[in-house]
Amino acid sequence: MSLDAVLNRIDDDLAAATDRLLDLLRIPSISTDPTFKNDCQTAADWLVADLQSLGIEASKRPTAGHPMVVGHIDGPGPHVLFYGHYDVQPVDPLELWDRDPFDPQIEDTAKGRVIRGRGSSDDKGQLMTFVEACRAWKAVNGTLPCKITFIFEGEEESGSPSLVPFMKENAEELKSDIALICDTGLFQSKSPAIVTMLRGLLGEEVTITGPSKDLHSGMYGGIAMNPIRVLSRIIAGLHDDQGRITVPGFYDGVPELTPEIAEQWQGLGFDHAGFLGDVGLSVPAGEQDRSPLEMIWSRPTCEVNGIKGGYTGEGFKTVLPSKVSAKISFRLVGTQDPLTIRESFRGWVTSKLPADCSAEFHSYGASAASTMSTDHPAFEAARTALSDEWPATAAYVGCGGSIPIAGHFKKILGTDAMLIGFGKDDDQIHSPNEKYDLESFHKGIRSWARVLAALT
Amino acid sequence: MSLDAVLNRIDDDLAAATDRLLDLLRIPSISTDPTFKNDCQTAADWLVADLQSLGIEASKRPTAGHPMVVGHIDGPGPHVLFYGHYDVQPVDPLELWDRDPFDPQIEDTAKGRVIRGRGSSDDKGQLMTFVEACRAWKAVNGTLPCKITFIFEGEEESGSPSLVPFMKENAEELKSDIALICDTGLFQSKSPAIVTMLRGLLGEEVTITGPSKDLHSGMYGGIAMNPIRVLSRIIAGLHDDQGRITVPGFYDGVPELTPEIAEQWQGLGFDHAGFLGDVGLSVPAGEQDRSPLEMIWSRPTCEVNGIKGGYTGEGFKTVLPSKVSAKISFRLVGTQDPLTIRESFRGWVTSKLPADCSAEFHSYGASAASTMSTDHPAFEAARTALSDEWPATAAYVGCGGSIPIAGHFKKILGTDAMLIGFGKDDDQIHSPNEKYDLESFHKGIRSWARVLAALT
Repeated sequence: MSLDAVLNRIDDDLAAATDRLLDLLRIPSISTDPTFKNDCQTAADWLVADLQSLGIEASKRPTAGHPMVVGHIDGPGPHVLFYGHYDVQPVDPLELWDRDPFDPQIEDTAKGRVIRGRGSSDDKGQLMTFVEACRAWKAVNGTLPCKITFIFEGEEESGSPSLVPFMKENAEELKSDIALICDTGLFQSKSPAIVTMLRGLLGEEVTITGPSKDLHSGMYGGIAMNPIRVLSRIIAGLHDDQGRITVPGFYDGVPELTPEIAEQWQGLGFDHAGFLGDVGLSVPAGEQDRSPLEMIWSRPTCEVNGIKGGYTGEGFKTVLPSKVSAKISFRLVGTQDPLTIRESFRGWVTSKLPADCSAEFHSYGASAASTMSTDHPAFEAARTALSDEWPATAAYVGCGGSIPIAGHFKKILGTDAMLIGFGKDDDQIHSPNEKYDLESFHKGIRSWARVLAALT
Repeated sequence: MSLDAVLNRIDDDLAAATDRLLDLLRIPSISTDPTFKNDCQTAADWLVADLQSLGIEASKRPTAGHPMVVGHIDGPGPHVLFYGHYDVQPVDPLELWDRDPFDPQIEDTAKGRVIRGRGSSDDKGQLMTFVEACRAWKAVNGTLPCKITFIFEGEEESGSPSLVPFMKENAEELKSDIALICDTGLFQSKSPAIVTMLRGLLGEEVTITGPSKDLHSGMYGGIAMNPIRVLSRIIAGLHDDQGRITVPGFYDGVPELTPEIAEQWQGLGFDHAGFLGDVGLSVPAGEQDRSPLEMIWSRPTCEVNGIKGGYTGEGFKTVLPSKVSAKISFRLVGTQDPLTIRESFRGWVTSKLPADCSAEFHSYGASAASTMSTDHPAFEAARTALSDEWPATAAYVGCGGSIPIAGHFKKILGTDAMLIGFGKDDDQIHSPNEKYDLESFHKGIRSWARVLAALT
C-alpha cells in the first residue's frame, strides 16, 4: 500500500468527488417531514449504489422509520465501523436562503470555496469524506486497508428512534474493534480534534403551584404566596456566588483533568474572548476558578432553558398566578449519576418550598456523560495521522453537547468510538445557507486516508 | 319627611322594583363588543325614561363611545352626585351558563333568593338600588331629600375611555358636595362597608438580555450568562425574608393606620383563614409583622404577574436564551409616588445586573393610591345609616384593587367619593351565572334611603 499515491489520487479526483457529493445533496432527505419519506429512500438507494460501486456488499435495511444503509467489506487491518447519517434538517425559513437548499453549488467566498446546500456539512459532506477516502484507496490499491462496516442512518435529525433497536437486533453484525463517527468539527475551525468527552444531560421540568387558581393581584396581592417569587428564589439559589451548583452531592463523580489532557487543552490556545464575543458576551460565567475550556467541556452545568408563568401576552394583566414552570437541564461529566442527581435536585427544590406551595416534576431524560478511553492504540494513531494532514497538532477535546450515538456504540456494541470531523463553526448547520468548506471536504478525505493507513 | 314610610314603601314595592330591574337586565348592553352597540343605546334610553318618570330632568349624552346618561333633580339637602354603569361584561363562555344570561329570573337557592343574569350585580342591580330608593322617596314625600345629579356610564367594562373627557367637558355641571358610587361589595358578604382606601398601581415590564442570540446550551452552557438566572436573582431579591420589599425608598409615604381605623378593622373579624382557604392557601405571605387586612388593604405590594423566557412549548429544547421578561406590578398606598418608585425600581434592577447583561423597561401605567378623607360629615352620617340597616356595624374599609373612577371624581371635580355597595363575594361578576342576592337588592335600596335621609 502507498499512502502518498492514495493522497495524490484524492487530489486528482476532487472535482469528481465534489460532483458526487452535489448529486447526493440534491436529494431532499428531510427526515422529520413525512412529505420527504420517498426522498429518504432515494438517498439510501444512492448510498447503497455508491458503496456497491466500490465492491462493498451494501443494502438498504428496513426499520420502523427511514431505512439504514449497511455495508461490509473485508480487509487486512482491524475491523472498523463507520457511522454517518444521510438525513438532513428542514430548510425553514426558506426565504432566508440565498439559493434553493437542494440545488447545491460550489461558491467562491471571501473565506475560500464552499459547497453550499442543505446537508453539505451535516452530515452528507462529512459522511462522503470517508467514502471518498475508501474510493481512492480502492482505486490505488485494489483493496481496502481494514475490514470496514458502514452504517448510515436516516433519522439522526429526528432523534434516531430506530437506531438503538437496529443496533440491538444486529449487534453481532455491527461489532467491530473501533467505531468512527464523522459528525463533529475542527476545533475553532482550524485544529483537527478527536472528541473524547461528551457531556451527559439531565432534563427536568419543575412546576410550582401556590394558590389553587389564578387570583386578582388587587384582591390577593400581598397576602397570597406568588409561585413566581418561589421559583425565582429556587433558581437564584441553584448557583452560588462563585458559579458552583448548590444541589447536594452534585459534584460527586466530577473528575479533574489528567495532566496530559490539561496540557493539550492549554496548547489549543482557545480564544474564549472571540467565542464569547461572537454572541455579545465577554466574561466567562461558569465556575470562577475554572478555565473557559473546562466550563464548556469538562465541568457540569445547570441551565434554565425556559420559564413561563402568569400573563405573558401583550399588555398587562394583574394576575397572581397559580402556577409557574421552568425547564432546567444539567450537563453532566465524568461519572456523575443522572438518577442520583435527579433525586437530589428534586429533594433540594422541595426543601426550599414555603408553606402552601407544592412542586411537580417531569423528567425529560437522563443520560450520563461519555468519556472515551484513549487507551485503544487507534486513538494515538489517528491523532498522529490528523496532525500530519493539518497545520495544527490534533488534540483530544471535549464536546459540551451530548451525542448519544457514541454512548450507544459503547453500551450496545461494547465498542469505543472516535469522533473525528471537519465542520467549521460558520457552517450554519440546521440554519439557512448551510455550507461545507471545500477545504474541509478535501482535507477531510485526505485525513481519513491517513487515519485508515495509521490503523493498519 | 318620614324615613319609616319610605322604608315601608320600599318593602311594599319590592316585586315591582325587581320587575323593573329584570327589564333592564334583558338589554344585552355589552360595551366591548360592537355587535351590541345599539343595545347600549337602548339601555341608556331605558334609564333616561326611568329617571324622567321620577320627575328627573334626564338625557342621553353622546360621547366618542357609548352614551352617558345624565340627570338632575333639585332638593333641599346637599348636592349629591351618584355614579353607576349600565354596560355589562361579555358572557363567554356561554356554555357555562345555566340559563340565557339576558333572560334573567328570580331563583330560589340554598342561600336564599337571587336575581340571576348578566349585570344583575355588576352594575345594573347596584345602580337600581339607588334609583329605587329615590323612587320610594318621591312616592312618599313628593320630592327628593337632596339635590341629586345622576351619571350612568356605558363603558366601565371596557376601560371608561370617554369618562375623563366627559367629566372634563362638563365639570361645572357635575360638581357636587359628595359623590356616591355603587359598584363595590359588602365586607365578607355580610358587613356594610364604605371603601376609603384604594391602592394605586405601578406596572412595569423588565426584559433582561444576556447573549445577543439564543444559544445551544451544549455549546455555551456554563460559559455564557443565562438571563433567566439573572432575572431570577433580581426577582428573588425583591422581597426580604420578612416579606418586605427591598427597592430603596419604597416605603416612603406609606402611612400607619389611624387608631380609629385600626379599631374598626379589628372589629370586622376578618376570616383570613377562610379567605386564604378558598384559594388553597393557609399562611399570609406578606410582611410578617402586619395583619392580614393590612396586607390586602393598607400595605404596598410587589407581585410578578407574568414571566417568560426560553423554550416554553411541549417537550424540551436545550436553548440558552438571549432574553427573558417579567411583568411586575406594585400596589401603592398612602402618598407613595409611583414615578419615584418606578425610577428607584429601574435603578435597583440595573444595579443588580452582572457583566454582559442589560435591562430594558416598559411602563404599563403608574397611578397613586386614593385615600378618601372621611372628614366630610357625609361619611359618618352614611356609616351610621348603614349600621342601622344591617345586622353588623358599618366600617371604613380598604380595597386592594384600583377603582380609577374614585380618583377621577377627586382630581377632575374636586369631590370626595363614598364607595358603598352591596355585592357579595359569590356574585360571580364577570363570570357565568352572575347573580345578585334579593337581600342585596332589597336592603341596598333601604340602605340608600337611610343614607339620603342621613345626608339631609
